Amino acid sequence: MRVGLIGFGKTGKMVADTLLKEQSFSLEWVLRRTEQDVGTYAGLLLGSGQPVGQIYCAFAIDPSAFFKEHPVDVIIDFSAPQSVDIYAPAAEQGIRVVSAVSKYDQIHLERLRHFAQQTAVLYSPNITLGVNFVLQAAKNLRKLVPQADVEIVEEHYREKAEISGTALRLAEALALDPDRYINSLRVGSVVGRHEVVFGLNHETIRIVHESVDRAAFAEGALFAAQWLSDKPKGFYTMEEAIGLERADEEADALG
Amino acid sequence: MRVGLIGFGKTGKMVADTLLKEQSFSLEWVLRRTEQDVGTYAGLLLGSGQPVGQIYCAFAIDPSAFFKEHPVDVIIDFSAPQSVDIYAPAAEQGIRVVSAVSKYDQIHLERLRHFAQQTAVLYSPNITLGVNFVLQAAKNLRKLVPQADVEIVEEHYREKAEISGTALRLAEALALDPDRYINSLRVGSVVGRHEVVFGLNHETIRIVHESVDRAAFAEGALFAAQWLSDKPKGFYTMEEAIGLERADEEADALG
Amino acid sequence: MRVGLIGFGKTGKMVADTLLKEQSFSLEWVLRRTEQDVGTYAGLLLGSGQPVGQIYCAFAIDPSAFFKEHPVDVIIDFSAPQSVDIYAPAAEQGIRVVSAVSKYDQIHLERLRHFAQQTAVLYSPNITLGVNFVLQAAKNLRKLVPQADVEIVEEHYREKAEISGTALRLAEALALDPDRYINSLRVGSVVGRHEVVFGLNHETIRIVHESVDRAAFAEGALFAAQWLSDKPKGFYTMEEAIGLERADEEADALG
Amino acid sequence: MRVGLIGFGKTGKMVADTLLKEQSFSLEWVLRRTEQDVGTYAGLLLGSGQPVGQIYCAFAIDPSAFFKEHPVDVIIDFSAPQSVDIYAPAAEQGIRVVSAVSKYDQIHLERLRHFAQQTAVLYSPNITLGVNFVLQAAKNLRKLVPQADVEIVEEHYREKAEISGTALRLAEALALDPDRYINSLRVGSVVGRHEVVFGLNHETIRIVHESVDRAAFAEGALFAAQWLSDKPKGFYTMEEAIGLERADEEADALG
Repeated sequence: MRVGLIGFGKTGKMVADTLLKEQSFSLEWVLRRTEQDVGTYAGLLLGSGQPVGQIYCAFAIDPSAFFKEHPVDVIIDFSAPQSVDIYAPAAEQGIRVVSAVSKYDQIHLERLRHFAQQTAVLYSPNITLGVNFVLQAAKNLRKLVPQADVEIVEEHYREKAEISGTALRLAEALALDPDRYINSLRVGSVVGRHEVVFGLNHETIRIVHESVDRAAFAEGALFAAQWLSDKPKGFYTMEEAIGLERADEEADALG
Repeated sequence: MRVGLIGFGKTGKMVADTLLKEQSFSLEWVLRRTEQDVGTYAGLLLGSGQPVGQIYCAFAIDPSAFFKEHPVDVIIDFSAPQSVDIYAPAAEQGIRVVSAVSKYDQIHLERLRHFAQQTAVLYSPNITLGVNFVLQAAKNLRKLVPQADVEIVEEHYREKAEISGTALRLAEALALDPDRYINSLRVGSVVGRHEVVFGLNHETIRIVHESVDRAAFAEGALFAAQWLSDKPKGFYTMEEAIGLERADEEADALG
Repeated sequence: MRVGLIGFGKTGKMVADTLLKEQSFSLEWVLRRTEQDVGTYAGLLLGSGQPVGQIYCAFAIDPSAFFKEHPVDVIIDFSAPQSVDIYAPAAEQGIRVVSAVSKYDQIHLERLRHFAQQTAVLYSPNITLGVNFVLQAAKNLRKLVPQADVEIVEEHYREKAEISGTALRLAEALALDPDRYINSLRVGSVVGRHEVVFGLNHETIRIVHESVDRAAFAEGALFAAQWLSDKPKGFYTMEEAIGLERADEEADALG
Repeated sequence: MRVGLIGFGKTGKMVADTLLKEQSFSLEWVLRRTEQDVGTYAGLLLGSGQPVGQIYCAFAIDPSAFFKEHPVDVIIDFSAPQSVDIYAPAAEQGIRVVSAVSKYDQIHLERLRHFAQQTAVLYSPNITLGVNFVLQAAKNLRKLVPQADVEIVEEHYREKAEISGTALRLAEALALDPDRYINSLRVGSVVGRHEVVFGLNHETIRIVHESVDRAAFAEGALFAAQWLSDKPKGFYTMEEAIGLERADEEADALG
């Protein structure tokens, strides 16, 4: 599968690195917002020794020409909301899109959703397999035992000021008041730990996610790209991709 | 829903006690193997103050007459494999059956399955909601990330000699060699704790079940009876009842 | 060791039951505040089959005569603050005292402390071995790495309204603001779980205590009684008894 | 405190990096076994921007002159057993030594111990604060409740073949048969997790250590150096340094 990557920050580089190591993917190019390293290759920068994944500045290309001259099967976007404007011509011509942008404004999210009329689009603000599994399993358990008490515990390094976005999303998915049911611990250098505790009448269930490092995002994006490769046009979520929910129930029917 | 209970040991009594407290169930009678307390009522013995749930000895009744004279909607069986012989006439006339017998021999399991040609039968050797959720969630995760490393940890009170049946069932469901992947801890007076650890490349997921007391079995049996009440004839498992798996995929198609 | 027990409520009975099973202790008598079961024996009531531990009503005895006629080595008190008035004559004559009264007012605590001029007195509001170990270990770790972040998580059954006393004591011992650093989870039927998380720069340490049942209090009281049996007069705490702290540093020097 | 560092591998570099950041330490020089980067400065290599911590090859120096010309208060050794031969002249002249060499043979360990006749020496094969605290707390608890059941669980990344050295040391300190009581899980990319479970009669205590990264070794070594700075000559362990054990009880009395 030929991949075009948007974004070459900390996480973007990790995605590129993972793509370079996977036989079933080829990294065709990288689009980034700055001029840094433009003209060189992600493969060389990241030590694979091969001149693959040439780096371009997103503002220096002519989009309508670029995507024809450098065809890919899927675009993976780890950059910012505004990037949808750049790859709009590609998406509208049917190139699949996996977006892991962490937060969209209304306008750009609408634009991303609009692509789904012409191609298959998957969007997830936290694209790791693990977090999405926990989210889905917790939702299932909530449905199964709605009378159970539920609490969320999230642990992160001391410098993290705000409540974790994953914890907020868990609370939303479980219809829990975040102020009351999210317990935030700030301790040392913990990368990230989320626990959902379900108190049933005579038993307790805990679903726990522990992050080791950010490469989990790359794993998730590749999984999403693979899953999306044979899907019809439409707007999909990571929860559907991990298959614990039936796509027809949840997919945004568009058009 | 009118319930007939088979078995009045430690767990059977707990089931009776739970039935007496639930508005949507009525305990019609109890069949037990000994003569103890025969003629009195489970309601009086268990302190509800009401003469409901008269106790009979299974060997002193005439089955074909008994089940006509004391009609119920569902039979809940927490006794022993041989009991299927006693309530065969009832099951064959269409009374639903929930069996939580912990271990069947081949012959009696065949007989139980045979009932499914005439009525809806659900069988689970560990009928708690929690354990079945963990089983199902772990199977889902295994399917999602087959490359992940999986280990099972089970903790119980020191006197428990053998490996926990739940751990063995988890290993079987996850296609793990129990000798290699079940880690058994015997510590103090722990009622029961099972943990399934999934080691993904850059993240770890833990699904943990902790037992507080045996009443969890009663909760599970009532949930199963409720779920079974509108099902067509067939042989069902608790995993289907908890709805994380589609019945049509997994149900034993009989006949 | 001959023991006199004050208090015969839920926990008091458990202490009596534990005493009856231990070879190295003999339960001489029980003093309780009500008239219930007075004249019978704790041994018979609790099923040991032996007429030991006769039950007396605390308000019907003549204290100065009673303690001479029914000599013991130690008094274990699981009742209420006011009981110190009843056994004052005994304590002042040198009988050792273990008090596990959960909360004293100022006046009765002073009286208890006063006994320490004549005998060895140990007082602990939460007399389990486990909680006191956790308290002591957490204090040690706090001293060792004062720069570490510390958070307390306490989990209990949903009906428990207030913050756990043990969590508050942990916060006090660790000089943590309880409003900020105690995270309270109310879930299902959890008997009691306390976790202290220490976030160091590159590692995390967790000290966890899980209660299985209230008999842990009985175990702790017997341990305290045994430990106290060869101590000189003075006022001691459970933390000293568990020996992780040197008595001379911490003991209340009286007189 | 002036520090000389022996060893400049993965962990050695982390120690240097930590030393460069700490105001109360100055890195005087680094001795390594290879010729790599000799003549340059650890400070420059590690990005502190300052020419401190000049790098020397251990085999190219004249030890008796070197240690006089480049005086330090303490030598920290993260290299190999044989290094004791190199810094013998320094140690014998009273320079303190902190050794974190992971495994000594008999001969070189004897030599290290011999230094203790002239100076203060601290040796620990796993010099993190956290592991040593867990070790000490677990030993204390073992002494307090010798009747409790104890099990060790260690989790590491899948490639780690052998049982963890820390788990073995825990088993040794707790007098547990490692074959029976160490449960080893190999899952994904877990950096390192050790748990000691104590099953008491009615309660459970867990002491858990989780590694985030190897910089924990550097923290431990600096802590040890600081602690050692005012100690009389003798042979010390990290457990004494963390102060949960009285030095006089445990120190190897020499001479």
